[in-house]
Amino acid sequence: MTGRLSLNQRTTAEWSLREAIDGCVRAGLPAIGVWREPVAEVGLDVAVAWVRGAGLRVSSVCRGGFFTGVDPVARRQAHEENLRALDEAAALGAPTLVLVPGGLPEGDRDLGAARERAAEAVALLAPEAAARGVRLGIEPMNPIYAADRGVVSTLAQALSMAERLPVEQVGVVVDTFHLWWEPDVHETVRRAGDRIVSYQLADWITPLPPDALLSRGMPGDGHIDFAAFTRAVADAGYTGDIEVEIFNADIWAAPGDRTVATLARRYADLVEPHLTRPR
Amino acid sequence: MTGRLSLNQRTTAEWSLREAIDGCVRAGLPAIGVWREPVAEVGLDVAVAWVRGAGLRVSSVCRGGFFTGVDPVARRQAHEENLRALDEAAALGAPTLVLVPGGLPEGDRDLGAARERAAEAVALLAPEAAARGVRLGIEPMNPIYAADRGVVSTLAQALSMAERLPVEQVGVVVDTFHLWWEPDVHETVRRAGDRIVSYQLADWITPLPPDALLSRGMPGDGHIDFAAFTRAVADAGYTGDIEVEIFNADIWAAPGDRTVATLARRYADLVEPHLTRPR
Repeated sequence: MTGRLSLNQRTTAEWSLREAIDGCVRAGLPAIGVWREPVAEVGLDVAVAWVRGAGLRVSSVCRGGFFTGVDPVARRQAHEENLRALDEAAALGAPTLVLVPGGLPEGDRDLGAARERAAEAVALLAPEAAARGVRLGIEPMNPIYAADRGVVSTLAQALSMAERLPVEQVGVVVDTFHLWWEPDVHETVRRAGDRIVSYQLADWITPLPPDALLSRGMPGDGHIDFAAFTRAVADAGYTGDIEVEIFNADIWAAPGDRTVATLARRYADLVEPHLTRPR
Repeated sequence: MTGRLSLNQRTTAEWSLREAIDGCVRAGLPAIGVWREPVAEVGLDVAVAWVRGAGLRVSSVCRGGFFTGVDPVARRQAHEENLRALDEAAALGAPTLVLVPGGLPEGDRDLGAARERAAEAVALLAPEAAARGVRLGIEPMNPIYAADRGVVSTLAQALSMAERLPVEQVGVVVDTFHLWWEPDVHETVRRAGDRIVSYQLADWITPLPPDALLSRGMPGDGHIDFAAFTRAVADAGYTGDIEVEIFNADIWAAPGDRTVATLARRYADLVEPHLTRPR
């Protein structure tokens, strides 16, 4: 059962876009989450033709965001880069552009102000997303990344930011690795309802690998209760694709087909049974 | 100005208790935060005589807790171990026993239940603490440790647990490293008021060192706004000692006296000016 399973490209980072598309097709996956860099390598038109030709849905484009800068020039550049990302998402037929907010600027210690700048940048981008038929997905990130990657740290906080703007324009990304520890997170997922634009799977493993950026595990290898998380996402009414997004040096070193086979099995065991249930 | 500065022993992990006491005295620090293991090495009576003889306050005893187990025997053993820790804190004249809740039991993925067991264990311990004149300090820990060390992840969550019990028995530990990223944390610190039993300083540095347990930095070396944090703690009415607690391999490799001199300077520059201010 892989009816909603999507391979986020970063899970098989050694694969090119072409290889990832072929890998999804071989494994019977209906969708792929693409990253902008491998798309740029082959050019947008080619990428669009490839995913269409393969009959794959593009579940999301990763990633926009990085708009916590203070400098007006940097902020304008970030906005323009995000417009290009939205154009790409629209061309690829992706429902969502995943927004990674960015960290604290060099030497800046005002986290609250950085969060507010992120919210302002999302507001500026929202009508542009709407005009292109793409929804923005604010991705709250594990606090381990608050300083250098993502200043939005909880689903509750991301939801507060999203709720300032129209639901058809701005939502939230629910990633188990980032959020599993959050107090009352299952309740907050349910409350998020149709603000959820993406559900991403990765496990929290211990001991934490030495590189904090590569510390995600295959679902089932760590401490996260995927059944409870998935029931909450289902209760929220989310019916979109479900991406597996794992940054992990050991997984990257393994053959891609084996990784995809493993994640498909884990999805079938740990996630799929909890997507529909008697109410 | 080191009038409230306390050296948490783990900052100079290479020093024995005797060396740490002497280091505090040489640097003019009025207090020390002790760990149970180095106290046990010399015996409680000797430790008590040493800190009294040196004229030092004991700002806290680290650490009790580790009571998230499921097995009834393990839970009783943890309770009894915590009673011994309370006896030691009382003998040393420490106002607070710091409680590190513990992580998920092996193979257990129910974080909510583990948090509830921690709350129950605190409730069981609270009257015992009161009988000994010691307050329990629930330490919320950075989510990086939620799986394997501390299931209580935010100050707001720790405060909710503490507030079920009498304020003179149970409070919260405010550690900048653990909490700096928490949404609205300064407001929550103010709201914590006289529930604050300890204020501990360490910075969040990037890139994160490879060993997640040794990833703390010297205040001023990282991303935390100590001025804003300290003003919130002062506004809350906290007047106790302020510990510097840093787990970091590079700092442990440096001579202890140099580490203490550095932290005293950072305290004077970054923290002390914000402890009192015009209202």
